[in-house]
Amino acid sequence: MNLRTTLPTVLCAAAALLLAGCASARAPQRYGMVIGVKPEKLEYYKELHAKPWPGVVKMIRDCNIRNYSIYLKQVDEQHWYLFSYFEYTGKDFKKDMARMAKDPETQRWWKETDPCQTPIPTHARDEWWSKMEEVFHSE
Amino acid sequence: MNLRTTLPTVLCAAAALLLAGCASARAPQRYGMVIGVKPEKLEYYKELHAKPWPGVVKMIRDCNIRNYSIYLKQVDEQHWYLFSYFEYTGKDFKKDMARMAKDPETQRWWKETDPCQTPIPTHARDEWWSKMEEVFHSE
Repeated sequence: MNLRTTLPTVLCAAAALLLAGCASARAPQRYGMVIGVKPEKLEYYKELHAKPWPGVVKMIRDCNIRNYSIYLKQVDEQHWYLFSYFEYTGKDFKKDMARMAKDPETQRWWKETDPCQTPIPTHARDEWWSKMEEVFHSE
Repeated sequence: MNLRTTLPTVLCAAAALLLAGCASARAPQRYGMVIGVKPEKLEYYKELHAKPWPGVVKMIRDCNIRNYSIYLKQVDEQHWYLFSYFEYTGKDFKKDMARMAKDPETQRWWKETDPCQTPIPTHARDEWWSKMEEVFHSE
């Protein structure tokens, strides 16, 4: 046993156990969303997201969104989609989203990103991104 | 300050900080995947995944897949897709996937799930599920 090498491992394991306890006390809500993206706007959309505006990223975190990824895929000759996955750690998703929508920097960001996107034909009346159904989860 | 209420909060924060240090030392690799699903097989696919076989779930974990979700969405009149998100915490993804593919229980599971799915027209030659491009991530 070498304390110098085993101590970090032990500390990490202890932290993981503690955090697992905290997490199970209030597990995040998972969200999967989808939207179409216009082929002619692909590059601009990618450029924007390669260097997202700091104020927008801060607002995402302030509104309790964590581990947020967006994926891009061309699924057939004519259709490109964006898929997002994120975890919500707050207590009132609607309230936090309303707060985000009021942020001037976020509004400017959406003025750039909205024209890149096309809601899917099956979107609900109040949806921009469409919520997907979770059919499986494994920790 | 009430020690009984603040101590758990302090411990959770300390655990989160410690684990953040561990995680940055070896962050998981994120994967987003997509595949088509046959409308006539939707219900069977959902039934299977509502009660996944324990041996299949164990093999997923043994192969270092964590936080694995599958989402389902009808995007237009004719197309239903499955989107998956997971985190890989191992050292050799190809090796772990080869191990999974050799597992008899997983093979039996895939005999049930494969006929439900249709790889997208743009899939790579060696793909069943198609890998998507990550264009944004925020912790």
